[in-house]
Amino acid sequence: MSEPEKNIPEASAGKQVLNGGTAAKTKEDFDLAAVYVSDALYNRNIYFDTSPQAVRLYLLYNHWAFKVLLYVFITVNLCLAIFEDPAVFPLPTWATMLVELLCVLVFTFRIVHYAKVIPRDKFWKDPKNICIIVILMLTLVDMIIYGALKAANCSIVRWSRVLRPLLLVNVTEGRQLRRAFRSIRNALPQIFYVFLLFMFSLLMFSLMALKLLGKRNLKTAAGLPYFTNYLEIVFELYVLVTTANSPDVMMPAYNSSTVFTIFFIVYILINTYIFMSVFLAVVYNNYKKYLKEEVRQLVRAKRHKMARAFAVLQEEEGGQSVVTQANWNQLVRQVRPDVSNAHRELLWHVCDDKKHGFVGKVAFVQLADLLNIEVITLKSRPHPLQSLVPKIYQSAPSRLLCRLVQHRGFVIAFDLIILVNAVFIGLDEENPMISNSEWVFLTLYVLEILLKLYVCEPRAFFSRHSFWNWFDTIIVVSALIATIINSALKSSGGYTSRQILDIVFILRVLRLIRVVDSIQRFRTIINTLIRIGPAILTFGQLIIVVFYIFAMVGMELFKHKVKFYEDHNEPSKLYCGNPLLNNTAFAQLNYCKNNFNNVVSSFILLVELTVVNQWHVLSDGFATITHVSARIFFVLFHILVVIIIVNIFVAFVLEAFFVEYSMDKNDLQTSLEKKIEELELAVAQEKLEDNLVNNMETIDNDLGTGQPSTTAKLPNLMFKIASKRYRTVDALLQRMFEEDLDPEDFAETDEPEAQTRSFPNPGFGST
Amino acid sequence: MSEPEKNIPEASAGKQVLNGGTAAKTKEDFDLAAVYVSDALYNRNIYFDTSPQAVRLYLLYNHWAFKVLLYVFITVNLCLAIFEDPAVFPLPTWATMLVELLCVLVFTFRIVHYAKVIPRDKFWKDPKNICIIVILMLTLVDMIIYGALKAANCSIVRWSRVLRPLLLVNVTEGRQLRRAFRSIRNALPQIFYVFLLFMFSLLMFSLMALKLLGKRNLKTAAGLPYFTNYLEIVFELYVLVTTANSPDVMMPAYNSSTVFTIFFIVYILINTYIFMSVFLAVVYNNYKKYLKEEVRQLVRAKRHKMARAFAVLQEEEGGQSVVTQANWNQLVRQVRPDVSNAHRELLWHVCDDKKHGFVGKVAFVQLADLLNIEVITLKSRPHPLQSLVPKIYQSAPSRLLCRLVQHRGFVIAFDLIILVNAVFIGLDEENPMISNSEWVFLTLYVLEILLKLYVCEPRAFFSRHSFWNWFDTIIVVSALIATIINSALKSSGGYTSRQILDIVFILRVLRLIRVVDSIQRFRTIINTLIRIGPAILTFGQLIIVVFYIFAMVGMELFKHKVKFYEDHNEPSKLYCGNPLLNNTAFAQLNYCKNNFNNVVSSFILLVELTVVNQWHVLSDGFATITHVSARIFFVLFHILVVIIIVNIFVAFVLEAFFVEYSMDKNDLQTSLEKKIEELELAVAQEKLEDNLVNNMETIDNDLGTGQPSTTAKLPNLMFKIASKRYRTVDALLQRMFEEDLDPEDFAETDEPEAQTRSFPNPGFGST
Repeated sequence: MSEPEKNIPEASAGKQVLNGGTAAKTKEDFDLAAVYVSDALYNRNIYFDTSPQAVRLYLLYNHWAFKVLLYVFITVNLCLAIFEDPAVFPLPTWATMLVELLCVLVFTFRIVHYAKVIPRDKFWKDPKNICIIVILMLTLVDMIIYGALKAANCSIVRWSRVLRPLLLVNVTEGRQLRRAFRSIRNALPQIFYVFLLFMFSLLMFSLMALKLLGKRNLKTAAGLPYFTNYLEIVFELYVLVTTANSPDVMMPAYNSSTVFTIFFIVYILINTYIFMSVFLAVVYNNYKKYLKEEVRQLVRAKRHKMARAFAVLQEEEGGQSVVTQANWNQLVRQVRPDVSNAHRELLWHVCDDKKHGFVGKVAFVQLADLLNIEVITLKSRPHPLQSLVPKIYQSAPSRLLCRLVQHRGFVIAFDLIILVNAVFIGLDEENPMISNSEWVFLTLYVLEILLKLYVCEPRAFFSRHSFWNWFDTIIVVSALIATIINSALKSSGGYTSRQILDIVFILRVLRLIRVVDSIQRFRTIINTLIRIGPAILTFGQLIIVVFYIFAMVGMELFKHKVKFYEDHNEPSKLYCGNPLLNNTAFAQLNYCKNNFNNVVSSFILLVELTVVNQWHVLSDGFATITHVSARIFFVLFHILVVIIIVNIFVAFVLEAFFVEYSMDKNDLQTSLEKKIEELELAVAQEKLEDNLVNNMETIDNDLGTGQPSTTAKLPNLMFKIASKRYRTVDALLQRMFEEDLDPEDFAETDEPEAQTRSFPNPGFGST
Repeated sequence: MSEPEKNIPEASAGKQVLNGGTAAKTKEDFDLAAVYVSDALYNRNIYFDTSPQAVRLYLLYNHWAFKVLLYVFITVNLCLAIFEDPAVFPLPTWATMLVELLCVLVFTFRIVHYAKVIPRDKFWKDPKNICIIVILMLTLVDMIIYGALKAANCSIVRWSRVLRPLLLVNVTEGRQLRRAFRSIRNALPQIFYVFLLFMFSLLMFSLMALKLLGKRNLKTAAGLPYFTNYLEIVFELYVLVTTANSPDVMMPAYNSSTVFTIFFIVYILINTYIFMSVFLAVVYNNYKKYLKEEVRQLVRAKRHKMARAFAVLQEEEGGQSVVTQANWNQLVRQVRPDVSNAHRELLWHVCDDKKHGFVGKVAFVQLADLLNIEVITLKSRPHPLQSLVPKIYQSAPSRLLCRLVQHRGFVIAFDLIILVNAVFIGLDEENPMISNSEWVFLTLYVLEILLKLYVCEPRAFFSRHSFWNWFDTIIVVSALIATIINSALKSSGGYTSRQILDIVFILRVLRLIRVVDSIQRFRTIINTLIRIGPAILTFGQLIIVVFYIFAMVGMELFKHKVKFYEDHNEPSKLYCGNPLLNNTAFAQLNYCKNNFNNVVSSFILLVELTVVNQWHVLSDGFATITHVSARIFFVLFHILVVIIIVNIFVAFVLEAFFVEYSMDKNDLQTSLEKKIEELELAVAQEKLEDNLVNNMETIDNDLGTGQPSTTAKLPNLMFKIASKRYRTVDALLQRMFEEDLDPEDFAETDEPEAQTRSFPNPGFGST
């Protein structure tokens, strides 16, 4: 705090208003400020109109129901591929067209809503809006053409389906996905040069292979001429870089002379090991560099928004611009209605640590970060049984039981039971002894949960952050239900549903995972993996976009060219229903089901291509039935997905793990968190006991137990920071960068989308 | 420099001696100081005895001839495997035994020499000496047992051969290799926990697969039962992690129901993508952490050694310990006789930048780093033709020619010629037009080199750092010679040697690489790759050690079980001479030559296993002919080489590239180099012209052209720092760390091998 004065009169006394014109802030002011703060909170970068009407529309635009609806319709739109020709479940064309029209209407409605929210010139300058409009228009055009030609019985390609996944990227909520694409785009120039050099090396080695091996009349295992065609060699050696044809491509040369292996070993060393590592290095390096820049911009934008919110709510107080506690309270209540009174009180004490009754700009700007830190309100409460049957619960045997359950041996005993269970699962379940033992194990597990509930307060046991308790209970209860249904079915008609049995088996095996949680070292690794989970979802979306586009193109190119027959006696099964495939590796390896006949099998095929192995067999198979240039499709997929996207994924996991490791070592606690922790104890024990706990008792409805007398007896309030568990790489980097930034630095963001430069006193409703 | 006085009397005037007892330093003093400095220069950490006799022995021990001899004998010892049973070229047992005995004698001589150099207690405390002695003794024991049993006609295993590559690790020169092994050892604990978790996940998924798929009576493509045996499933799923059996293992389940692909996709996502990335992250993280620590110790040890050298040569000068210029000169001359007088003069000016005539401790310690910076002495000299035929060389057409050759178009023209050449190489060389065109291209290339030599001074053209000039000339000249021999052979008897033709082809293709050098962006990537080359050699040694051990074990386990027949009509070729292999994938894929029948094919097989693809087919092949437990050998190899060593290699390339990138950005130039550059200009133009150049003319014999008059006419001397090109990751990190370290900090190294703590005045000959 840079304020020199210490004793300022009461906050509400000498109030002077500079901005806004009235002493009391209007509802519109709070709406606007709340929108700024929540934009800062969720890192939204939308430069909306600041007129009260636009702000109301913007609030509506950000309503969760609209967002859910949007994603539901995007999903429906993408899922249409299941029902369109080539379909998994065919539906008449009019039905899918009708649904698609509905989707287009919803998207149009959404974009119109967005256009109403932001200034017109901003709207038309934003490429993502243009993208959406173009996609929607092209979709309509395609639907009309398709419908017309379909009516005239002409066959035509539904080309606009390729555009569908792009909506996922261009909607305002696709921020993370856009960032992933930007990160790819930024890495492209550097990757391109390495790729050119790699291609040069590939072409050189191919030329050498042609000269060395082409004239020796060697034959492949299939009896075909070996290394005689230059383009064929280039493809074979490209496949060798992916290691998919590793010893096979070398064997004819090796069989002819051991010396030729030197050629292949040098080739593999240079192209597979060195070049592929260089690709990873380039991608990783770009990823890191770009991430830093993105985070820098995010932090700047966030500060800027918070400063705008401050400008809206500021009042003059002893020559300074400040926000009063009352206004601050109302703002927080509006931004995050789910924050409890006690928690809000705590945050206020962190912001106003000198107890002035108001906060300055620097302290106010912290609010977005403070709200992002997850604080768990813990309250030690007596066990419900203690109030119901206090005598029994407090008796000696009951206490002994509690001690037993809390003992380390209890955990070890159940770990051993799980291991024995694992052995029993492995044994043949047809044996009645084994199948009955399942009941014993289920009983033991249920007993374990009941015992833990006896010892532990149920609400604490099932608190939001006790992942393993939830996991246990859900698995055991579902296993119990599934096993009961299964045996009921069995005893009634002797018939067991295969599906239910499968579910029972899966649940039984999943139960075993619990054993991992007992070992500290495993828990840390697993927690890291869980923590990077949400970010992996962004990669999931990225993969879906790319796969969907390739699946659509692949389906148009290769649909119904390969057939899969369920019937084992079908003679054309031997060549997948396509005589061209006779005696190819594709048919011999029984890959008939790897086809582009519908969207599901296309996706599975693309996953197989991502895993890389045997991709040349699949590629050759489809090249055989169409044209040799079909290989381009597969090579393109390999370059895009394996060389670029998988490497970015690996780079992401690498970075996430380093951040985790450095967190473990430094135990990074920012000044903010330390402040909370210092204050937390003070809050819990001294000053706030009177007003805070009363607030909580009256307002926090989820904590009302109906027994205020018992609860008030020992109101031991505790706060716990949960944020450490939920930190993402971005959040951490953001915090690291914030420490570098001057707390007084509220410079405008230099983003291209940056609005007016009239800060620090933006005219209210200036548009 | 921390000296407060500026005007000190002449260096040789008020000389007082504190240490050593005499005013002039003896030859022993210089020997000892030179040893310390050269140890610091080459990062040797040998705590030798400081008695004059031991120092002389130590100098002998470090003589390059002995080192070369040692490596020759290590190579011979390793190569014995080629001649021993199972041999590539069989030799009688007595011959190989005799050679091995000779090798053992050489190694014994070397270790005895080493024992004489360092104090006895140090010698016995060092594990690497114990290792060598144990290896040598075990080898002798094994040779005696083998010889005795061989005489008695009993068959026995030569088990001590496994120990041979360990000598490579334990000799004093194997510093880099030991470091690589240490880096692996340090990463092991962390890798172990991730590996346990990975194994747990593998076992769980296998259990689930057994329960889900085991009872469905599915058949593999070969008609065998699918997923019915638990251990078989574990192996199959382990192979799936390596992606080697990627779609095949899934196909039977996929053919039965599409739903099962979910199981495999989840499995691949978790185990192949996430766990394998985590392995890389753990290995990389450890590599970085450990590298930093190693470099820290290296820098400390280096400073410590330099401080010792200073202590030996120091004299008292105005209350300070200093080293005089004369002593400094003699020391540098002794340590690096190859450094020219001019270069030494330059270094002295950098050290003694205030021109006192002596250097203090801080400046003296820099010497090791200064000597490590490669400085190229450039001297603009007239072209020899100018002095021979000045009129012709200075004439207008000659000048035009020079301008033409130096023009950008000249390079572009020859790049185009190379591209045309590439096309011609690709065409059929049987065509007489094409084969004659080769002569045209050869003439053009020779012409290019001659033209360049006409323009450029020949010694500058063939300077040590002009990689591409050397490359060009060697390739073109060898191609010329080979082509002439080839056509001579052809015209004489019509018979063309295939080997010579192969060499001609390879040289022709290699010539094309030159085109890469013309493009700036490619050159930077290639330079990075060349720069990390030497460090890759350490990985080469590491790989040889591990491969050799696996090859020895593999040969004992699997030798002569699989046979390869050159003859295509041999019926047992179908099952590689082993009926057990009938109808296995191993025989069907024609992998008979992938065997352990001699050390060369073992190495090739191990390379194939490193590339991973089809390793399960090889593993199953050898398991079929011996026992299913043979798979352990292959899985162990995969874990050790692919999961650990290849990941360390990737980590190394990643780190090397980041260092390169950050060098590009910061253009890291330490203060040391800047100082040289500042001084360089001063040196070249002003003060040093008189004495420096004279020195050079008289002493630098390699520069004496026999025409002093012409040369002295314009003695434009220039220094160029070449170190930037030859920086390794280690050297860079070392420099980065040195900047962190206080220049006055000469604290003793805390290495376990650290000698006496009697610094800063160690008693001379104290042992």
